[in-house]
Amino acid sequence: MKTISKTITFSTKGNPDLIDITGEISRVLSSAKIENGALTIFVVGSTAAITTFEYEPGLIRDMTELAQKLIPANKQYAHDRTWGDANGFSHLRASLFGPSLVIPFNDGKLRLGTWQQVVLAEFDNRPRKREVVIQIIGE
Amino acid sequence: MKTISKTITFSTKGNPDLIDITGEISRVLSSAKIENGALTIFVVGSTAAITTFEYEPGLIRDMTELAQKLIPANKQYAHDRTWGDANGFSHLRASLFGPSLVIPFNDGKLRLGTWQQVVLAEFDNRPRKREVVIQIIGE
Amino acid sequence: MKTISKTITFSTKGNPDLIDITGEISRVLSSAKIENGALTIFVVGSTAAITTFEYEPGLIRDMTELAQKLIPANKQYAHDRTWGDANGFSHLRASLFGPSLVIPFNDGKLRLGTWQQVVLAEFDNRPRKREVVIQIIGE
Repeated sequence: MKTISKTITFSTKGNPDLIDITGEISRVLSSAKIENGALTIFVVGSTAAITTFEYEPGLIRDMTELAQKLIPANKQYAHDRTWGDANGFSHLRASLFGPSLVIPFNDGKLRLGTWQQVVLAEFDNRPRKREVVIQIIGE
Repeated sequence: MKTISKTITFSTKGNPDLIDITGEISRVLSSAKIENGALTIFVVGSTAAITTFEYEPGLIRDMTELAQKLIPANKQYAHDRTWGDANGFSHLRASLFGPSLVIPFNDGKLRLGTWQQVVLAEFDNRPRKREVVIQIIGE
Repeated sequence: MKTISKTITFSTKGNPDLIDITGEISRVLSSAKIENGALTIFVVGSTAAITTFEYEPGLIRDMTELAQKLIPANKQYAHDRTWGDANGFSHLRASLFGPSLVIPFNDGKLRLGTWQQVVLAEFDNRPRKREVVIQIIGE
C-alpha cells in the first residue's frame, strides 16, 4: 500500500467554466503505477467544485442553466456586502456541488462509466489559476 | 493495510428508483475482514447517484418530489436534443447529488447512524443494470 | 501506511446551525503524525451534512437562505406524517448536501484553500449531540 499526490493547475475562465479533467487525472493514475485503490480529486478554494457528467455541449449548457436557476448570479448576496467582490453566488454553487470526489480504480483504471467525465466547475466570476489535488491510495 | 474491491450489479427501474443498498454494502465489509478504514461507494454511469437518507416511504416520496422540483423531468433540456433520449434531467440530478460517498468504519462496522441508509438513486428514465463499486481501504 | 480514527462530538443548535470545524479536524491530523494521505469527515445521522465554504457572517446568512429557498422549512413533507417530528426538511437538506467529505493532506497539512473552511451543517430542528468521525489514511 502506498499513497501518491500530485497537484495540477488549471487556468480557468469564470461564470461558469466547466472543464473536462478526466484525461489529466487518468494520466496521473497511469504514472503512479498503483493498481487498485481509491483516487481523491479535490479543488483548492471556495468558489469551484468537482462533479461528474457526460461532457457534451448540450449538458454543458444545461448545467450552466441549472446553476443559474438554483443560485442566480444576478442577485445580491450578503457575502457581496462583506467583501464587495460580487461572487456570493460562486461560493454558494461551490458549496452545493462540493469540492471533492472519490473514484475507485482497479487494474490501473478509474471505474468511471463511458459517458461519465470528471469536471472541474469554476464558478468564480473571473479567471483563476485553480489547483486540483489528486491523491491516490492503493497497492 | 490492504484494499479490497467488489462490484455489485443492481437491476433498477427509473424516474426515480431509490434503492436501499446498506445491507449489500455491510455484507461486503463483513466478508472483507478489515477492521478500520474508509469504504468508498461509487455508482458507474452518469444518470445515477449515491446518497444517504432515512429509508422510509415518506422520505422516498419527499426525495422524489424534491428531485422533480429542483430538476423537472417534464421539461426539455439541451442534452435531449443531442441524443434524442430525453433523459437530460437524469444527468443533471445525478451530477447534483453525486456518484460517490465515503463512509468510515471501525471494528468492522460502518459508522452510519441508526436511521441513515445508503441509497442508490437511479435517475434514468428507463430500467438499467447498474454497477456499484465498493472499495475498502484499511487494516 | 496506517489509519487512525477519531470521533468528535459537537453540541449543535438547529434550523440551521453552521459550525466551523476546521480547527478540530486540523488538530486531529496534527496529533496523528501522518504526513501524506486522505482524511475523511463523516457526520453520523440523517439530518446533518458536511460542506466547505468561506466561514464569514455574510455567507452563513446566504447559506441559510439558500437552504430555505431550495428546501423550505415551513412546508409539510410526507416524512412529517410518518413520525410527527416535523423535520422532513432537515432530512432532505442533509441528503442534498451530503454527510461526507474527503480532503487530501500533504506534509501534515490539509490542502484546503485559505478561505475554505470545513463546516458541519446541523439541519435538524432542535439541538443535537452530533458525532463527526474523522478517519485518516496515509503514511
